[in-house]
Amino acid sequence: MPRFKMTVEYDGTPYVGWQRQENGPSVQGALEAAILSLTGETVSIRGAGRTDSGVHALGQVIHADLTRAWQPYKLRNALNAHLALAGEAVSVLDVEAVTEAFDARFSATKRHYLYRIISRPSRLAVEAHRAWWVAKILDHEAMHAAAQQLVGHHDFTTFRSAHCQANSPVRTLDRLDVTRQGDLIEIRASAQSFLHNQIRSFAGTLKLAGEGKMTLDDVRAALEARDRAACGPVAPPEGLYFMKVDY
Amino acid sequence: MPRFKMTVEYDGTPYVGWQRQENGPSVQGALEAAILSLTGETVSIRGAGRTDSGVHALGQVIHADLTRAWQPYKLRNALNAHLALAGEAVSVLDVEAVTEAFDARFSATKRHYLYRIISRPSRLAVEAHRAWWVAKILDHEAMHAAAQQLVGHHDFTTFRSAHCQANSPVRTLDRLDVTRQGDLIEIRASAQSFLHNQIRSFAGTLKLAGEGKMTLDDVRAALEARDRAACGPVAPPEGLYFMKVDY
Repeated sequence: MPRFKMTVEYDGTPYVGWQRQENGPSVQGALEAAILSLTGETVSIRGAGRTDSGVHALGQVIHADLTRAWQPYKLRNALNAHLALAGEAVSVLDVEAVTEAFDARFSATKRHYLYRIISRPSRLAVEAHRAWWVAKILDHEAMHAAAQQLVGHHDFTTFRSAHCQANSPVRTLDRLDVTRQGDLIEIRASAQSFLHNQIRSFAGTLKLAGEGKMTLDDVRAALEARDRAACGPVAPPEGLYFMKVDY
Repeated sequence: MPRFKMTVEYDGTPYVGWQRQENGPSVQGALEAAILSLTGETVSIRGAGRTDSGVHALGQVIHADLTRAWQPYKLRNALNAHLALAGEAVSVLDVEAVTEAFDARFSATKRHYLYRIISRPSRLAVEAHRAWWVAKILDHEAMHAAAQQLVGHHDFTTFRSAHCQANSPVRTLDRLDVTRQGDLIEIRASAQSFLHNQIRSFAGTLKLAGEGKMTLDDVRAALEARDRAACGPVAPPEGLYFMKVDY
């Protein structure tokens, strides 16, 4: 069967998360329903990463096996038409025909995420559900310095959800950069793979570093503690964006 | 009575527009309700510009007369707390004590707007209600060149809503710049004042220029026609942002 790689954007706000679940609408379910209404085929698609409820994607990648050898741009347009009809906050940005050797999850060599913080005294209006609002003014240079303590090959037990299903807490974090433009602080994280809640755990800890409540040594000690209790409060989902997958 | 100047941000999506109306919730109504619940005072506030339903603001300016000489930051924080409680998509960014000589509408010397177009084949997800989606690829340089035909002191009857209440269709347009960053095309407009639907009319016409459906001469002729029928289709409200007011 022809296999298709698709790059997908979504607003995570109205969904229980990427993965199909009993308790509400999922992004995976929205895409599978669009494929069903277009082709009549019940398929199970696989995504490069599972995102939690409220987490957005600008470049999630999935693969799906379909009966027909669609022209990629026609499949993209037809799926978008069905997603629009269903009122879903999901868009198929790109479709590519691939071989069966391609697997959206297992072929990925690097995943890139962005975490957005808006640091200002006033609540968010236009950016509500699109960033984490932090009323305190954060020192982004202190956050960046703290982030560099986390880059590299480590046991990230401290920064891993209790629900994480990965076999090992060891990961190689390639990049964790913090920059600021006006009120907006951006944290960019790249690695081959991440643990559940790892980036939101980083963001929560880096926020404490930005407030001056954790020093570089504190952040290093939190990592070395390999203890979930050493982590700052996990940052909320609305600041997190799944940006891009390398293959 | 102490007068306060306030800078206000809002997501225009859930509102019938800036102005209080019978047919649904307005931004003005949300702010007046927040003032009432905070102070017990029924005030009528004035905004620098009336925005239509779906139009956003990052820097609307209003003034309000209150009985008490509030400390500005306390008034800002208290109003934001009441807006949050009421679930409004409105945020007070800044409060300043001013004299009675200040009028948010009549003291304004320049108003700045941004119109955002996302030009790509796929529908919007994260940016839904935050930009105008145009599936065709637009030539932003042609749009910018066309825009320069409109800058200056002109009779803008062509680009004015039939419902416009201004006495004169003559305005001085100081700036109409079109730039692109990736899929995002930004139109920035500045003038002392604008006619009703003027910027959305510009955006609709410039989109035709970007598609190659209107030449520079066509745009100039549309302006000179002083005829609403010569205007391209008015662009939708969701791309428009009221950015800033100069005093």
